[in-house]
Amino acid sequence: MIESNHQVRLAARPAGIPGPDTWRHTSEPVPEPDAGQILVEVRYLSIDPAMRGWINDRPSYVPPVGLGEVMRAAGAGCVVASKDDRFAPGDLVTAMTGVQEFALLAAEAAIPVDPTVAPLERHLGALGMSGITAYFGLLEIGRPKSGDTVVVSGAAGAVGSIAGQIARLQGCRVIGIAGGAEKCRWLTDQLGFDAAIDYRAGAIVDRLAEHAPDGIDVYFDNVGGEILDAALARLARRARIVLCGGISQYNATGPSWGPSNYLSLLINRARMEGFIVFDYAARYGEAVTQLARWIADGRVIAREQVVDGGVAAFPEALLELFRGGNTGKLVLRVRD
Amino acid sequence: MIESNHQVRLAARPAGIPGPDTWRHTSEPVPEPDAGQILVEVRYLSIDPAMRGWINDRPSYVPPVGLGEVMRAAGAGCVVASKDDRFAPGDLVTAMTGVQEFALLAAEAAIPVDPTVAPLERHLGALGMSGITAYFGLLEIGRPKSGDTVVVSGAAGAVGSIAGQIARLQGCRVIGIAGGAEKCRWLTDQLGFDAAIDYRAGAIVDRLAEHAPDGIDVYFDNVGGEILDAALARLARRARIVLCGGISQYNATGPSWGPSNYLSLLINRARMEGFIVFDYAARYGEAVTQLARWIADGRVIAREQVVDGGVAAFPEALLELFRGGNTGKLVLRVRD
Repeated sequence: MIESNHQVRLAARPAGIPGPDTWRHTSEPVPEPDAGQILVEVRYLSIDPAMRGWINDRPSYVPPVGLGEVMRAAGAGCVVASKDDRFAPGDLVTAMTGVQEFALLAAEAAIPVDPTVAPLERHLGALGMSGITAYFGLLEIGRPKSGDTVVVSGAAGAVGSIAGQIARLQGCRVIGIAGGAEKCRWLTDQLGFDAAIDYRAGAIVDRLAEHAPDGIDVYFDNVGGEILDAALARLARRARIVLCGGISQYNATGPSWGPSNYLSLLINRARMEGFIVFDYAARYGEAVTQLARWIADGRVIAREQVVDGGVAAFPEALLELFRGGNTGKLVLRVRD
Repeated sequence: MIESNHQVRLAARPAGIPGPDTWRHTSEPVPEPDAGQILVEVRYLSIDPAMRGWINDRPSYVPPVGLGEVMRAAGAGCVVASKDDRFAPGDLVTAMTGVQEFALLAAEAAIPVDPTVAPLERHLGALGMSGITAYFGLLEIGRPKSGDTVVVSGAAGAVGSIAGQIARLQGCRVIGIAGGAEKCRWLTDQLGFDAAIDYRAGAIVDRLAEHAPDGIDVYFDNVGGEILDAALARLARRARIVLCGGISQYNATGPSWGPSNYLSLLINRARMEGFIVFDYAARYGEAVTQLARWIADGRVIAREQVVDGGVAAFPEALLELFRGGNTGKLVLRVRD
């Protein structure tokens, strides 16, 4: 069986939105594992806002993807060959597979997945990094107390939708900010958010004043930009802003933006704090166990939006993410 | 004895730098205390960056000064008449006296001053709100640990000069940012700062990289603007930014500025947190006792810059503050 491993590699660092020149589609023979390695056939790839940061040539919490390298991505798939006792062909795993059909991995870099718990793609979303990020970001950085008003931006996204639901389970009043009436309805009608604000309808500060009359105790930010400034303008005393992401800025090419209402932190004795989920690696199990229980109990709703087309469709899937086209976790189906 | 009480009142809310139209100079008969009141002859007035915020018509941590009202100010002076058992003529006090020569106050609003501890004007600076602000802001919000690198902006000012010296006493390496070579020399040669950066000489990020090669653990910000952005660019992991003030923005009239490097908080798992010294009112005594001891031991150097001219000179004194003309605490001498 001679197969080809189709890949997407970084061809050039984009200014602004990644265009066709950003990527190069390549094909290689499928590699074979050496001792301690496994070969994984990738079935799903996680499409994440953070990917935009990984292709900038700037130091960050991970090194930039090098020019010519296979694009970094989390994936879920099936072990097809193993030279390590921990895995056998047929085992399902998640790992940083990259945007390719087959990934050769050190066995210790793969996380086994129990297929009876949830569909495979969910282990990239609510039971993967997205859910874990929501869990630690909200609980450890936001530290919501029962009765708090919690506002989540990017609330219909992979992380925001889980963060908001966890806040509800802490006894908080939860307001989601999302793009479009349909997403907002999903938040209130399906996920149990107390209110949802469609940022495309404008007047975000006024809507926050209406839905959070006593101010915002916790703001979980995935977007930055004018939505962050609106939240800053409506902080309650001793508010906590959880900096999880800033998707509105990731493709910006103009003069760099900063939150001009930042001195609201001073007036309100509030804090804005960033975090990286990797720092909680030793506690991932705790988060996944809790999230799986909430999902099984129907207390948290997980949703994945699966796009087809294989690795060749990766560039378009990433653009769809930045257009806000997804509701829930966006994943790319690589092979069935 | 018929005396006149000269006052400075808010005549109009300024856009940008307060000009002559901002103020009205008035004169009234000196009032007499009723039961529970004292009359204080004001000797020194504290000139503070926060004054600029008090004359905006925006809700903040204190109500705006009303149009036509005597300008709010902290003052130090001598009780000249008392209808309260707690004070007798000749007692020295600090209080929110306002910009006037005589202040009629509720006795409970005045804080007795021991003239043997320090010169009267110091009770508006290192032993007053400036020192107390430095003490709680640095220790409670910045939480420096021995060996940390601490950067202070506005380092030659009333709060910054004390904050930096307290950081030194915690075993930190301390870098001050100030305007001009003379102030920088004062920081390193007199106050024991490990390094000083003259922001007027430019290239702040490069100088921070040079003096804080392992990054900044605590940044105590009095200024905002490009200096805050430079500090954000050089944060160490889990850094704490203490938002004490933003003097560079207080007179801004252009498009509002925000720290465009704020996502450095995310990458570095860092936090930016504001505080208001009033929240520590129950612990002011602790701070003043400790500061007085350090000053007596010669471990903290306090400096006041006294300008003359009485209340009529208040508008010019405030402008001098915003020009960065002062080293140490700027106070206006009202009456000797």
